[in-house]
Amino acid sequence: MKLRELAARLGCELRGDGEVEIRGVAGLEQAGPGDLTFLANPKYAAHLATTRAAAVVVAPGHGAALPRLVAANPYLTFARAVGILCPPPRPAAGIDPQAHVDATAVVGEGAHVGAFAVVGPRARVGARTVLRPHVVLYEDVTVGEDCLLHSGVQVRERCRLGDRVVVQNGAVIGADGFGFARDAEGQYHKFPQVGTVVIEDDVEIGALTAIDRAALGETRVGRGTKLDNLVQIGHSVTIGRDSVLAGQVGIAGSTKLGERVTLAGQVGVAGHLTIGDGVIATAQTGIPSSVEPGKIVSGYPAIENRAWLKSSAVFARLPELQRRVRELEARVAEALGARAGR
Amino acid sequence: MKLRELAARLGCELRGDGEVEIRGVAGLEQAGPGDLTFLANPKYAAHLATTRAAAVVVAPGHGAALPRLVAANPYLTFARAVGILCPPPRPAAGIDPQAHVDATAVVGEGAHVGAFAVVGPRARVGARTVLRPHVVLYEDVTVGEDCLLHSGVQVRERCRLGDRVVVQNGAVIGADGFGFARDAEGQYHKFPQVGTVVIEDDVEIGALTAIDRAALGETRVGRGTKLDNLVQIGHSVTIGRDSVLAGQVGIAGSTKLGERVTLAGQVGVAGHLTIGDGVIATAQTGIPSSVEPGKIVSGYPAIENRAWLKSSAVFARLPELQRRVRELEARVAEALGARAGR
Amino acid sequence: MKLRELAARLGCELRGDGEVEIRGVAGLEQAGPGDLTFLANPKYAAHLATTRAAAVVVAPGHGAALPRLVAANPYLTFARAVGILCPPPRPAAGIDPQAHVDATAVVGEGAHVGAFAVVGPRARVGARTVLRPHVVLYEDVTVGEDCLLHSGVQVRERCRLGDRVVVQNGAVIGADGFGFARDAEGQYHKFPQVGTVVIEDDVEIGALTAIDRAALGETRVGRGTKLDNLVQIGHSVTIGRDSVLAGQVGIAGSTKLGERVTLAGQVGVAGHLTIGDGVIATAQTGIPSSVEPGKIVSGYPAIENRAWLKSSAVFARLPELQRRVRELEARVAEALGARAGR
Repeated sequence: MKLRELAARLGCELRGDGEVEIRGVAGLEQAGPGDLTFLANPKYAAHLATTRAAAVVVAPGHGAALPRLVAANPYLTFARAVGILCPPPRPAAGIDPQAHVDATAVVGEGAHVGAFAVVGPRARVGARTVLRPHVVLYEDVTVGEDCLLHSGVQVRERCRLGDRVVVQNGAVIGADGFGFARDAEGQYHKFPQVGTVVIEDDVEIGALTAIDRAALGETRVGRGTKLDNLVQIGHSVTIGRDSVLAGQVGIAGSTKLGERVTLAGQVGVAGHLTIGDGVIATAQTGIPSSVEPGKIVSGYPAIENRAWLKSSAVFARLPELQRRVRELEARVAEALGARAGR
Repeated sequence: MKLRELAARLGCELRGDGEVEIRGVAGLEQAGPGDLTFLANPKYAAHLATTRAAAVVVAPGHGAALPRLVAANPYLTFARAVGILCPPPRPAAGIDPQAHVDATAVVGEGAHVGAFAVVGPRARVGARTVLRPHVVLYEDVTVGEDCLLHSGVQVRERCRLGDRVVVQNGAVIGADGFGFARDAEGQYHKFPQVGTVVIEDDVEIGALTAIDRAALGETRVGRGTKLDNLVQIGHSVTIGRDSVLAGQVGIAGSTKLGERVTLAGQVGVAGHLTIGDGVIATAQTGIPSSVEPGKIVSGYPAIENRAWLKSSAVFARLPELQRRVRELEARVAEALGARAGR
Repeated sequence: MKLRELAARLGCELRGDGEVEIRGVAGLEQAGPGDLTFLANPKYAAHLATTRAAAVVVAPGHGAALPRLVAANPYLTFARAVGILCPPPRPAAGIDPQAHVDATAVVGEGAHVGAFAVVGPRARVGARTVLRPHVVLYEDVTVGEDCLLHSGVQVRERCRLGDRVVVQNGAVIGADGFGFARDAEGQYHKFPQVGTVVIEDDVEIGALTAIDRAALGETRVGRGTKLDNLVQIGHSVTIGRDSVLAGQVGIAGSTKLGERVTLAGQVGVAGHLTIGDGVIATAQTGIPSSVEPGKIVSGYPAIENRAWLKSSAVFARLPELQRRVRELEARVAEALGARAGR
């Protein structure tokens, strides 16, 4: 594609030769002839002089010898360019003869159902949605339009996915929550998990992530929220819009996360809490109690990030601090005499 | 179902109008007309006055204006009521024509084998057991009676499951343990994992949980134990009866857990340890050495929970403690003169 | 098999009666008549006197009353013996009639493709490679020779596996990395993940482990490296040769691990870091910044292991340390009079 055409499709300002042919995409240092690249972080600006790329997406005010597209948010614009230049593989519409689609199920126009996929009784698959091989939809599942479910995804009875939802391989939506009632002898009895899961529009769910159905009512993931791989979402959890949960995060049952919450990798959140809008938790943080909107928290038990950074710095010097206390005790005992017991 | 009939089936005392029709179940605050609800935690008792539920399960001594079932353990009784009122979907007995059942396999009376399920050579499926679509049983697997294996569950060669075992979607039972022998050049060579896994009766295994087979001998999960999602059980681990492991817990190889052990979310336990009966570990605890029966432990490395709570409180004030030591040093140095070196 | 024959196949020195028949393998304490066992850790040497095994693999210089094989590395030699005595089940060559192999795919000589496996357009499966039931290879995947992929493994478009790669059940190779560009309104837009994953020769990948494809370029796991279960490898990560990552480890995007790196269970590594050759991180360590070759690190944020052990010991006594500081303040205040403010 010519750079001029790409600029037009992205709605970007073009600087330099628009006739250059763009054949691929790559990072600044890896790019070769024919590649489009981008500069989002100014600290890599020096690479602009040496990149072999054919063109670059830059923010306004960045000069460059090579042809460039000027965009307020170069990373976002480059992401869109990648989608145009390298469209993901898309199977043709239709139901594979080796799929198992129940007679009472409804598959929308232009949808694709891959080999060995199962679409259960009364399940509904929206228009243009793609189910890759080995997707399983239990009875009464609803999947919206323009969704993409990768191979090995399991969706349990009655769960509902909105439009444009993307689910990576092996994710499980709607398995039973972890609910048991203990009897007087200490044995556990299953609390039947009769609720469901609702995934709103534009959510993406990572590989091998588990979102449990509610015991009663529903578990809900809000519009535009993105979950990474191997994330655990307990029963009756609610996650607000535009939140981001990184890999291996775990949220225990009935906790409510607000909008625009960011949880870094391996964070754990206890059950029955409220995590306010815009909260950020750094990696491996363990959150045992509710967090006010806008806070940045770290450590276990989680405290404010700045306090945690300071305490962590002292932690690394604790043996020295202990020694100083011991020396003070000795000096004070010596100075003040026999009363200095301990 | 009339409340009177439900009371009879639960063996509960009925107070109030037994003719009220029960059509669903819900929490105290979410319940609407026709719903049965429950009060287990006295701190929610005030909601009894405002709930719109048709009836409630309560402990003896709790008054309520609405019809009620009186039970010593309201949560357990409500759980049983949910099972009666909202029975889980159960596929009809029989083998789906698209399943793959080896000629040498045995499928018990009343069992169901779903589409694209694989029952390998010499595998045995007990009476009334349900294999949802896409369950895979390798050769020589034994699954007991009245089990429920959800879609995507994989059970490897020779593993044995008892009766009434429930396995959520995507769990893997009997994958090779992580065992390698290192040679003089630092390269790792596989130690063939020729042992197996035994899952005793009434165990429940969460979605995407992995229970590795033993290198030699067996990995064993004791009767009535419940494992949540994304749990990792290493090779040759033994877990006693009636234990509970929450989401994302990991147990390294050859460790023995006693009975009634409770591990909260994201706990890790090192290999070759003994964790005594009744031990509780709070969330994210890391256990590097064996723990005596009955202990409650926290932190990493794990210490007794009370000590950890106190140390954690001081941790959050470490910068202040450090400042106080610095001030003391200055005051002592000033008072005691030039000898005050450090 | 006679011990004499086994010694010959292993190239080991035989001491004692070579005519003894070996029928199985077991640990020192579990072994019965007919079993081969081994002694690798000298602290178990006393069991040599009481084991019921038929023969034992020992290091040079270890006497034993029973027949023995002498090997410099008894554990490695025993591992090889297990492979000879208990060869893993191996399905016959051929494509199961219920498999789905695209007309444009190539399946090598002696390979096995199990029931309901999917081999996508232009995918290539090397000679003697085994795909167990329910393996899914997307379009343009390449799997080398003598590989073993267990049921439920998913390999996404264009990913490449070398020779002798073993992948345990349910692992996902090449799912989209977690990359999103945020717009001015705080909404996230997918950065299409158009890179790939390369798994070099002799790698083993654990059950339910996820290795994400790169956004651009490739994610790479080096020759001979072993990944345990439920591990998360972010996009564009590079792992060197002969490294070992234990269960539930997570590596964020674009980080580079050197050769012979060892990460214990539940370790987390932040993105865009360099972890040097031979680094060891103990369980649950959180690594927020790059680590020099050869270091042993612990804690979060990770510090040198020795320093962490000392600080952790003081942590457990922090309340006592705080009390001592308080007493010092009181004594100094009393001795120095009214100036002792705070």
